[in-house]
Amino acid sequence: MSETSDVASVPDSAASTVRREAHLATYSREQINQVLDATHLAHVGIIAADGRPTVIPTLFGREGDVLFLHGSVASRLVRTLADGLDCCVEVTLVDGLVLARSAFLHSMNYRSVVVFGRARTVEASEQLHGLKVISDHLLPGRWEEARQPSETELRQTCVLALSIDEASAKIRTGGPTEEEPEDIALPIWAGEVPIHTSWGTPVPASDLPEGIAVSDAVRAGLRRR
Amino acid sequence: MSETSDVASVPDSAASTVRREAHLATYSREQINQVLDATHLAHVGIIAADGRPTVIPTLFGREGDVLFLHGSVASRLVRTLADGLDCCVEVTLVDGLVLARSAFLHSMNYRSVVVFGRARTVEASEQLHGLKVISDHLLPGRWEEARQPSETELRQTCVLALSIDEASAKIRTGGPTEEEPEDIALPIWAGEVPIHTSWGTPVPASDLPEGIAVSDAVRAGLRRR
Repeated sequence: MSETSDVASVPDSAASTVRREAHLATYSREQINQVLDATHLAHVGIIAADGRPTVIPTLFGREGDVLFLHGSVASRLVRTLADGLDCCVEVTLVDGLVLARSAFLHSMNYRSVVVFGRARTVEASEQLHGLKVISDHLLPGRWEEARQPSETELRQTCVLALSIDEASAKIRTGGPTEEEPEDIALPIWAGEVPIHTSWGTPVPASDLPEGIAVSDAVRAGLRRR
Repeated sequence: MSETSDVASVPDSAASTVRREAHLATYSREQINQVLDATHLAHVGIIAADGRPTVIPTLFGREGDVLFLHGSVASRLVRTLADGLDCCVEVTLVDGLVLARSAFLHSMNYRSVVVFGRARTVEASEQLHGLKVISDHLLPGRWEEARQPSETELRQTCVLALSIDEASAKIRTGGPTEEEPEDIALPIWAGEVPIHTSWGTPVPASDLPEGIAVSDAVRAGLRRR
């Protein structure tokens, strides 16, 4: 997973260059997009108005080279980012525990992306589109099933856009590595415990009128998992 | 989930006071600890040496009112935090998709904690203990099974400690809320799609000598999931 692609790689910078466990890093646009598309939740780091680092979990969507982040005009995240402040968007999927013989070499299998950049608040004309991208990222087809936002709802919403210009991915797979022969000879079980994420049986809303079946978008989402 | 406990609540501050969807917030020490203990991965926000917000996914453990964060002396995170800089530790578990009739009211069920504070690098005498707390958090009993760290390994490791003095949790459960009667009457399926995380069948390391069974700690971890 340490191979980097020459094609469509994301420009490097001091901030996005992976230093720790650099052999796990990639700057391939395709791999970065695959990781981003495999999860719903981004961890957005900003410097808050009080000057302190702050991390806020946020729904997001990707369209091409742009991330759309969901916010509310009431939130600290958005009031800060509306000025176009720097942010760091991090996503991580945990795929397993890596259990080595050496306590020191225990690790996790994961897929992680970090994007650095300056987020902007989208214009009113782009807001509906940004919300659709976030909705499609969460559950393709749901946007078309749902009641579209009203003018009042749109006024309560804020969408931020961030170009994926400066990004890197880190991907770890497989069992423990780098153990010395004398550790491998120890009578200690070593390997990987995979961690899976799955969707359960849909639970209808308590106020759902009778006779409304689980929708196509939800059933398609369940089939993909 | 919007109830707050008067007992053992975590002192409030401007930074840790939840503003967005404040009715989901709690400052109860017990609920904060429950969320922290239900996951392995923290998203640590810092202001990096270049002045930019940076989020780094990190293994962690909790003991009482202290979080221990795993790092490496080679990493950007640790070189910065070794000076005792401010950080924000965020954890989030995603428990489900919340599908409303209104596109605007779509949401997720989640359990999230944010801790603000100044992390310190632990002394050499406390380092082994910090690593054991992180290991116990990942998989109880594994520390005793594994080969203990050597002096050389300890020199390559860094453990940070952060007091849980300023923290809050946000917890959302259940189906869609706040929908208007005219939306509820629409012929659109609404409800929750639960998201489950589970452990799969352990995969032995390719170099595991024959005849070594899956260990007690791993089997106990699997039973708990």
